[in-house]
Amino acid sequence: MAPAAPRSGDAIFASVERVNAELFTLTYGAIVRQLLTDLEEVEEVNKQLDQMGYNIGIRLIDEFLAKSNVSRCVDFKETAEVIAKVGFKMFLGVTASVTNWDADGTCCSIVLEDNPLVDFVELPDTCQGLYYCNILSGVIRGSLEMVSMKTEVTWIRDMLRGDDAYELQVKLLKQVPEEYPYKDDE
Amino acid sequence: MAPAAPRSGDAIFASVERVNAELFTLTYGAIVRQLLTDLEEVEEVNKQLDQMGYNIGIRLIDEFLAKSNVSRCVDFKETAEVIAKVGFKMFLGVTASVTNWDADGTCCSIVLEDNPLVDFVELPDTCQGLYYCNILSGVIRGSLEMVSMKTEVTWIRDMLRGDDAYELQVKLLKQVPEEYPYKDDE
Repeated sequence: MAPAAPRSGDAIFASVERVNAELFTLTYGAIVRQLLTDLEEVEEVNKQLDQMGYNIGIRLIDEFLAKSNVSRCVDFKETAEVIAKVGFKMFLGVTASVTNWDADGTCCSIVLEDNPLVDFVELPDTCQGLYYCNILSGVIRGSLEMVSMKTEVTWIRDMLRGDDAYELQVKLLKQVPEEYPYKDDE
Repeated sequence: MAPAAPRSGDAIFASVERVNAELFTLTYGAIVRQLLTDLEEVEEVNKQLDQMGYNIGIRLIDEFLAKSNVSRCVDFKETAEVIAKVGFKMFLGVTASVTNWDADGTCCSIVLEDNPLVDFVELPDTCQGLYYCNILSGVIRGSLEMVSMKTEVTWIRDMLRGDDAYELQVKLLKQVPEEYPYKDDE
């Protein structure tokens, strides 16, 4: 069943409490710097950012469902569109597009048109293996897990690594529809 | 000299880029949790949060000066009012009030009317010594240092510790007016 009267990302974003994006950007930068200091290995920082994102995602999904009126998506294709058009807009104030679908509709790319996490960021040579925005992949993974979609989320392109866009590949590994934590009628 | 046509915190907040407050709150919570895991000692976490805030503050002051049209405050009293009325509004979307001035006008309290950092937060018994919002004291300290005011910022009241408000004491230790990094005419 298609979502019942879902609200646009713009409308939701306009109505929710917000904080200054630069404060958020600098705060996120402070986290990454802290992790680089504490963990030393860039690969460990990537993992930790992803895990932090996961922990955020499993809570953020509640806000998403409460504010967006999105209930159940008909398939993974619709889910990806909702993440890109409603989710990114609602939380970061940016939109994203969905591309590069595979033939069976279980793997696609989300391409960010803008990315407030990386304002003022330049990676030093010592951090070339870092996925600076890895918290985002964790947020998507965590959120989707709470609506019973097990996914793998990986960076395909990263402008901090010299690519021409930010592109996240989202691959659906497993879906367990009956475990939805909410009902359509609620 | 009084600030030349400073903009209100509301006006600035309405015009800047923003992100969802819940995302910010959860992201901040993820930092604190991470520090508690990595550093173990609550006192160390307090120090680290303050230091992270300081690093944010020394950069955030640029955004503040650029967007607010606030130039130079006539004295520390005006500075404190600007932090409470413009700074908090511009970055966190909340207002604060200034009270408890000492006789010589070098020490006051900033009382927060709302605090987006603590939504959904409850401290477990093992974290009773934690100043969860200690990043804020660091931000104020760092920002003021960039406009040549050396301050000491400490929590007087903290609702997560059972108090009835969030109250930060800001004490001016030293002021070096000639080291302002900007000129009134610029």
